[in-house]
Amino acid sequence: MSEKKKFMEEAIKLAAENMNKSNGGPFGALVVKDGKIIGRGVNCVTSTNDPTAHAEIVAIREAAKTINSFNLEGCEIYASCEPCPMCLGAIYWARIDKLYYAGTQDDAAKANFDDSAIYKEFCLPKEKRQLQSTQMMREDAVKIFDEWIRNESKIPY
Amino acid sequence: MSEKKKFMEEAIKLAAENMNKSNGGPFGALVVKDGKIIGRGVNCVTSTNDPTAHAEIVAIREAAKTINSFNLEGCEIYASCEPCPMCLGAIYWARIDKLYYAGTQDDAAKANFDDSAIYKEFCLPKEKRQLQSTQMMREDAVKIFDEWIRNESKIPY
Repeated sequence: MSEKKKFMEEAIKLAAENMNKSNGGPFGALVVKDGKIIGRGVNCVTSTNDPTAHAEIVAIREAAKTINSFNLEGCEIYASCEPCPMCLGAIYWARIDKLYYAGTQDDAAKANFDDSAIYKEFCLPKEKRQLQSTQMMREDAVKIFDEWIRNESKIPY
Repeated sequence: MSEKKKFMEEAIKLAAENMNKSNGGPFGALVVKDGKIIGRGVNCVTSTNDPTAHAEIVAIREAAKTINSFNLEGCEIYASCEPCPMCLGAIYWARIDKLYYAGTQDDAAKANFDDSAIYKEFCLPKEKRQLQSTQMMREDAVKIFDEWIRNESKIPY
């Protein structure tokens, strides 16, 4: 069996185990570097009361801890389902190189998860989104960014 | 001063303090319920080596802990800058009702943060994105979703 298939099988196994233990949604993910698993994650939203505890987020946090860096360049992520917008964003911020996924956002939608609905919201102009959003006090925020730009001791990322 | 202005001032103050302490990027956020702050967050990506530790994610996790629920319906979030895709996704999953923000994704881009670049990636078809993504083994993942749909002891969210 190919290495990729082995890793995806493990991600799907994590998803199944998580569901069977009633720990959270049926999602599993792992982060791989140089052929080794450096982070594993399952969805623990309901068991830990953390709406951000999706499998990919948990796996990325663990992988970053393993290599002691917020930069996961050179890593791959295997996800039992296509990442939701939150998790896709996290994959970009972590600088992960490659994503392998099994189920799709539409498969998740059939199981009553909102991934696909949230993706649709992202493509709407702000005033048409379900989430009401209001801008205020921009000039105060810009001052802080200007300070950041001038700050020579910052750690960029 | 209006209540909203007071909360946004606090979010921006958190951002400034975080930068001055060299704890991470110049971002702050807070979650408010019934006029009370139930979660505060600052960006601690570089200080905790956690690429997901954006201000909004940290604030949402704290708020969910405070009220012991993954569902933050009825809450508002104040962010010193327009949330990135990861954080916007988290806001949707947390079921937060209203978003108030100060700086824009373009202000963040000028300070060398990738928010705006990541938003652009989201709107591209997968094959045109910088992140390589490959689907595999979908049928195995669908089996798990089918089990989830039939599972009567699940906690939906």
